[in-house]
Amino acid sequence: MTDRRAKTKCSVSVIGGNACPAEIYRAAEEVGFLLAKAGRIVVCGGLGGVMEAACKGARRGGGLTVGILPGTRVEDANPYVDLPIATAMDDARNLIVVLSSSVVIAIDGKLGTLSEIALALNNGRKVVALGTPDLDQAWLSGKREFHRVGSPSEAVEKALELEGR
Amino acid sequence: MTDRRAKTKCSVSVIGGNACPAEIYRAAEEVGFLLAKAGRIVVCGGLGGVMEAACKGARRGGGLTVGILPGTRVEDANPYVDLPIATAMDDARNLIVVLSSSVVIAIDGKLGTLSEIALALNNGRKVVALGTPDLDQAWLSGKREFHRVGSPSEAVEKALELEGR
Amino acid sequence: MTDRRAKTKCSVSVIGGNACPAEIYRAAEEVGFLLAKAGRIVVCGGLGGVMEAACKGARRGGGLTVGILPGTRVEDANPYVDLPIATAMDDARNLIVVLSSSVVIAIDGKLGTLSEIALALNNGRKVVALGTPDLDQAWLSGKREFHRVGSPSEAVEKALELEGR
Amino acid sequence: MTDRRAKTKCSVSVIGGNACPAEIYRAAEEVGFLLAKAGRIVVCGGLGGVMEAACKGARRGGGLTVGILPGTRVEDANPYVDLPIATAMDDARNLIVVLSSSVVIAIDGKLGTLSEIALALNNGRKVVALGTPDLDQAWLSGKREFHRVGSPSEAVEKALELEGR
Repeated sequence: MTDRRAKTKCSVSVIGGNACPAEIYRAAEEVGFLLAKAGRIVVCGGLGGVMEAACKGARRGGGLTVGILPGTRVEDANPYVDLPIATAMDDARNLIVVLSSSVVIAIDGKLGTLSEIALALNNGRKVVALGTPDLDQAWLSGKREFHRVGSPSEAVEKALELEGR
Repeated sequence: MTDRRAKTKCSVSVIGGNACPAEIYRAAEEVGFLLAKAGRIVVCGGLGGVMEAACKGARRGGGLTVGILPGTRVEDANPYVDLPIATAMDDARNLIVVLSSSVVIAIDGKLGTLSEIALALNNGRKVVALGTPDLDQAWLSGKREFHRVGSPSEAVEKALELEGR
Repeated sequence: MTDRRAKTKCSVSVIGGNACPAEIYRAAEEVGFLLAKAGRIVVCGGLGGVMEAACKGARRGGGLTVGILPGTRVEDANPYVDLPIATAMDDARNLIVVLSSSVVIAIDGKLGTLSEIALALNNGRKVVALGTPDLDQAWLSGKREFHRVGSPSEAVEKALELEGR
Repeated sequence: MTDRRAKTKCSVSVIGGNACPAEIYRAAEEVGFLLAKAGRIVVCGGLGGVMEAACKGARRGGGLTVGILPGTRVEDANPYVDLPIATAMDDARNLIVVLSSSVVIAIDGKLGTLSEIALALNNGRKVVALGTPDLDQAWLSGKREFHRVGSPSEAVEKALELEGR
C-alpha cells in the first residue's frame, strides 16, 4: 500500500514517432527501462515505434505502462501497454499524453511529436529532447524548459531532476 | 511478467456522481474492493463521491486505480487514484472513461452518469446499473446490454460475467 | 453589418439520429425551416437523418447551418451544411454540439441523442424534445429545463421562449 | 441560395497569439479583410489578439467569422465572432481550428500557434506563415506545405492558390 501511494502521480510521458529506425527504437527502450527502474510509470500514446519501445523497456524493468490511444479500441494498443486508455480523440489525444506527467521525454519524432512538445511547454510541462530536430528559440518566448540531451541515461537523469522543480 | 500480461486490458469502469449519500459511498467502496479482489483495474472519472469511494475500496483490495480527470491538473484527482490522466476535456472526458473498459458499472448518478451510460451503450460497452434511475427501453433500440442489479456483489458478478462476452 | 451583429450567438442546436423515418425527417426539416425564418443559425452534428433534414429546412428558409462533425474530413458533412467543423472527436463532439447554443431541440433519437440531452442539461442548456422517448424525472434532479412538445412549430416556439431566460 | 452553396466549405483558418503587438494586430486585420473580400469564411480560435483582429477585418470586409473556443461559454468569444463554437476542450480545440479548413494562415504566434502548425501539417492541411519564427526542415519530413510569406496580401494570395490543390 505504502509503495503504491508513493508511486502515485510519478509518471513520465514518452513521446515520439509511430515508426522509427532501429537505433531510435533501442534508445526508447532504454529510456523506458531506466524510468521503470527509477519507479516511474511510463505514459505514452500507446501505438508503435518509440511508444512501443518505451513500453517494452519499461515492462522489462518491472514498471507499469499507460497508452493514451487516439481511437475507440483498447485492442489497438501495442502489446507492452498495461493500461490502454481509448480516447476517440485522434491527434487531440496528444494533449492528454503530455498533461498527465510533469515531465515529457521526446525521442526523435516528426510533426506529431512537435505538436506534443508545443502543447507540453504551453501548459507548463518540462520537455527533455533526445535526438529530435531543434526548436527555434523564438517559439519558446522565455519558457526555457526545453532541454536537449545526448543519451537515454542523460534523458532519464534530466527528467528526474526536473520532476521535483 | 505473466501476471502483468494477464492483467492487461482487464479494467472495469465505475461511474457515478461527484457527491453522493453515505449509503451510496459505501456501496461504491464495496464495488471497488470486489473488483480489486477479482484482479481488475478500476477506471473512473477521478473526482469525489462514487469515484472516490470506488478508488478507496480498490486500494483497500490491493488493486490499481485510474482517474480520467476533466481538467488539466493531475492534482485534482482524489487521494486514492494511482494513475491520474489529465484530459482538459471537461464533460467530454466521459467518453474516455467508458471507452477504456468493456464493462461499465454505474452507481446512483444524475445527468453526468446518464450521459456516460448513453455513450457506453452507443459504443458497444455493457452497462451494469446499481441504484440508478431507470432508462426507458425506447432509448435502447434493441441494445439490451443495460443490466440493473441490486447489490455491490451482484454488480461485480454481473460485470465479470459480461466481460467475457 | 447591423444584421450580422444582431444575429451573433443566436443559434439553436438540433439533435437527433443519423437515420430516421420519413415522418421524422419531415418534422426535422420543418423545425430547421422555422428556425431559419426566425433568424436563427442551425447548429447540428452535420451528418444524415435529423441533422440533414434540419439543415435542408434551414437552407430553404434562407438560414445558415453549422455541422459539428465527428471526424477529420469536412467532406463528410451533409450537402446542406454551410459551415462544416471537423472535430476528430467522435462521439465526444456531442458536447460541442450542445454547448454552442443556449437551447437544444431534440427530435426522435436513440442513445447518441440521449447522451446529448444529458450533456446539455448537465451544462445548463435547455432542451426541447419532440418525439423522443421519455426521461425518468429521477435523472433530472430538479433541473426542469427538459420540455416535451408535440409539433415542429411548438418546438421552435418553445425554443425561442426559453432562449431569453 | 446559389451564393450560399458556392461559399460552402470555403473557409480559411487564421491562427496566432491571444495577445499581440499593434503591428501584428494590423496585419491580422488586413488578412481577415482580404479573406472576406475573397468570399472566404474566417475560422479561428475565437479569442483576442490575432484571432480578434482577423475577425474584425473579416467583418469590415462583409465576411462571416467562426470562433472555435477553448471553454464552455460562447460569451468568451471576441465581439467580432459571428458563430461561436464552445468546445470545452482547452488547447485540444487547436486541432479543430486547423482541421476545419484546407489552408491555415499563421500570424506571429508562440507555442500554441506552433502546436496548431504541427497539427495542421500532420493532418494534410497547408500552412501559410506570416511573421512566425522559423521551423527546422527536419520536423517537416518531406511535407513541404509550409510556406513563409512577407505580407498580408501575399498570405491571402498564397492561401487561395493552395486551396485548390
